[in-house]
Amino acid sequence: MRRDLSPVGGEQVIIDLGERSYCIDIAAGLLDRADAFSGLPSASVAMIVTNDTVAPLYLERLRSSLAPHYRTVLHVVLPDGEAFKTWETLNRIFDALLGAACDRKTVLFALGGGVVGDMTGFAAAAFMRGVPFVQVPTTLLAQVDSSVGGKTAINHPLGKNMIGAFYQPQRVLCDLATLDTLPERELSAGLAEVIKYGPIADMAFLDWIERNMGALRARDPRAMAHAVKRSCQIKAEVVGQDERESGLRAILNFGHTFGHAIEAGMGYGAWLHGEAVGCGMVMATRLSARMGLVDNAFVERIKAVVEAAGLPVRAPVLDEGDNVARYLSLMRLDKKSEAGEIRFVLVDGGGKALMQGAPDAVVGEVIAESCVA
Amino acid sequence: MRRDLSPVGGEQVIIDLGERSYCIDIAAGLLDRADAFSGLPSASVAMIVTNDTVAPLYLERLRSSLAPHYRTVLHVVLPDGEAFKTWETLNRIFDALLGAACDRKTVLFALGGGVVGDMTGFAAAAFMRGVPFVQVPTTLLAQVDSSVGGKTAINHPLGKNMIGAFYQPQRVLCDLATLDTLPERELSAGLAEVIKYGPIADMAFLDWIERNMGALRARDPRAMAHAVKRSCQIKAEVVGQDERESGLRAILNFGHTFGHAIEAGMGYGAWLHGEAVGCGMVMATRLSARMGLVDNAFVERIKAVVEAAGLPVRAPVLDEGDNVARYLSLMRLDKKSEAGEIRFVLVDGGGKALMQGAPDAVVGEVIAESCVA
Ligand SMILES: NC(=O)c1ccc[n+]([C@@H]2O[C@H](COP(=O)([O-])OP(=O)(O)OC[C@H]3O[C@@H](n4cnc5c(N)ncnc54)[C@H](O)[C@@H]3O)[C@@H](O)[C@H]2O)c1
Ligand SMILES: NC(=O)c1ccc[n+]([C@@H]2O[C@H](COP(=O)([O-])OP(=O)(O)OC[C@H]3O[C@@H](n4cnc5c(N)ncnc54)[C@H](O)[C@@H]3O)[C@@H](O)[C@H]2O)c1
Ligand SMILES: [Zn+2]
Ligand SMILES: [Zn+2]
Repeated sequence: MRRDLSPVGGEQVIIDLGERSYCIDIAAGLLDRADAFSGLPSASVAMIVTNDTVAPLYLERLRSSLAPHYRTVLHVVLPDGEAFKTWETLNRIFDALLGAACDRKTVLFALGGGVVGDMTGFAAAAFMRGVPFVQVPTTLLAQVDSSVGGKTAINHPLGKNMIGAFYQPQRVLCDLATLDTLPERELSAGLAEVIKYGPIADMAFLDWIERNMGALRARDPRAMAHAVKRSCQIKAEVVGQDERESGLRAILNFGHTFGHAIEAGMGYGAWLHGEAVGCGMVMATRLSARMGLVDNAFVERIKAVVEAAGLPVRAPVLDEGDNVARYLSLMRLDKKSEAGEIRFVLVDGGGKALMQGAPDAVVGEVIAESCVA
Repeated sequence: MRRDLSPVGGEQVIIDLGERSYCIDIAAGLLDRADAFSGLPSASVAMIVTNDTVAPLYLERLRSSLAPHYRTVLHVVLPDGEAFKTWETLNRIFDALLGAACDRKTVLFALGGGVVGDMTGFAAAAFMRGVPFVQVPTTLLAQVDSSVGGKTAINHPLGKNMIGAFYQPQRVLCDLATLDTLPERELSAGLAEVIKYGPIADMAFLDWIERNMGALRARDPRAMAHAVKRSCQIKAEVVGQDERESGLRAILNFGHTFGHAIEAGMGYGAWLHGEAVGCGMVMATRLSARMGLVDNAFVERIKAVVEAAGLPVRAPVLDEGDNVARYLSLMRLDKKSEAGEIRFVLVDGGGKALMQGAPDAVVGEVIAESCVA
């Protein structure tokens, strides 16, 4: 499975899932290397799925690298945006596949961020009940989070990611050079998910992130390679113990309970997901402190690294009237809450996460404090 | 897993798929027995999916039997017909689930024929990336074929069953009494799939079918119980060796290559699927004879049993001009054909099936003969 990526200083992470094992290749310039795409299931047709922001940047380059491996390289360009992560857009992938008489050997390539990746993955899972697909994530968030773990989905008007499948790619190719065109805000949003892996699983990684934040924000490929690799490893370890999300996997949602409330309360899109998660991690760490798990210095530490990533650390006021009540009710609606009890991912300051409830009064204090801090 | 169904003379078939093993219960009157629904994954909400033909007949009865097991029993009634096996209709299931704030513990019940079963199965596979579901098939075809094997799907304007999942139910409950309201033509269509299992896998079963055709057409529960059980066993054996359809499973398509050409050529719906398959089995047996696998007496035998089931044995003329060419081109378009080569399921007269190509000239003779015979 290992391919030699040394010429570009590549990293590899093997995701061990028995028969469905696959490999994450991480290196700058992968997109332009035809050899990075060898050894995939043999097929005569490849279908690249991308969007109208990413296509002008990278479609032709991916097509050139695929050309030696497939008789035909097709593509479908979707409209860009979370608002298009819908059945209607998904159907355009099916239309393209069936319009070109593709069969169950066709290999799909997701070229883009998490939206394209999630939709393409679900299309691959459902087309003829499953065709192979490859992730070519071009956002930091997609490289460190959404491409790993096998979750695919589209949204429904009544809920995000409500319709989907657990479906593993054949390979993930993270070309770090594609991050160079990523807007600053999107880069920072991706860094939120990178930071997340430290407090929940690996304090040495948190140390490393703190020391290398400058290099990361400057998109230094060597720093990026390590950040992506270590993030993927941690996510893979957690997911490997809980592929179908029965419990443990929930620790990956550190910062997300507060974060989802912010996203929903501000209206989706006002804050990027990663921005809400960044702020949410500060809030969850504060809650961990109030629950006696960490000290205030640790709260300040998380706050500092989130801020250094270019992310907001002050929580937005969601309701000029009863702001705390608004936060609490949004968190109770979150799909992770069960029977009205909000489950938080707390951290212990030593690289371990815990799923726990907390008294409303204490959570309220955290919210109040976070909106002024 | 075994539950005592003896009071209604029930049969059981265990589908052994490791962790995803499940049980097919076969008996008259199951729908009215609350105990038949015990031992399923515990949940507070059940969602019955059915259609507007089946609902007036059986919805209330299923609801009563589920009531002791769930706090809430919801339902969604879809429009009846293959034409509605679409994303739009599927979405009505998601709307109902999300409108009622269902979570990933909700159990779906498919109450109806293969169309309802296939759609509900896919809805269960995709809703929150997988919720449990139970098949309650009410057509003979669904009881002996579509409920077993884990294939679920919806249609796309460019192809039948193009979008779906391999997804196993928690249980299949075949209430033979529901077959009493089935239109005669639908019953015969289901018998085509029952007959199919004989020549491809079990000549003793073919003998039994021949001897019991009268009882089957009279819907005698004892005869039906055996026919459904043996059919499910054979399908399960074949599928168990090839869950994801790489090769062997294709023998279940005996009669289907010719049958699909008839369905497509006549316009979908003109002939029922089972009618086309019945006639297609006669044609495939004729081809087996011309390929030297069986003698003419065997062709007559298959023709007789298909006819006795109330199914057509004379193939329709699909083109007043070049009928043979029309059949051949339709068969070449069939998704089972690879690179233009039509693969037929032939039989050896001893209970074994073979996948084989055949010279166009020979196939043409079979077509010509079958349109006048
Ligand atoms: N499957 C999972 O486990 C998982 C995990 C986390 C998030 N997600 C999903 O991921 C999605 C968010 O992913 P995202 O943050 O990548 O958002 P995104 O896919 O919307 O990408 C963000 C923006 O960056 C653009 N873009 C992508 N690559 C670019 C590049 N190289 N240069 C310039 N612009 C580029 C995109 O077109 C888009 O406008 C959400 O839908 C979320 O539900 C899934
Ligand atoms: N998943 C699989 O492996 C598989 C295998 C074979 C067929 N199929 C699918 O199954 C479908 C065909 O199934 P079908 O033949 O059951 O068709 P169907 O579901 O359309 O049912 C036939 C008709 O009978 C009605 N009906 C159902 N139960 C009844 C009852 N008890 N009394 C009176 N009327 C009743 C239905 O409403 C419908 O009008 C097709 O969509 C086909 O693709 C799937
Ligand atoms: Zn996230
Ligand atoms: Zn059939």
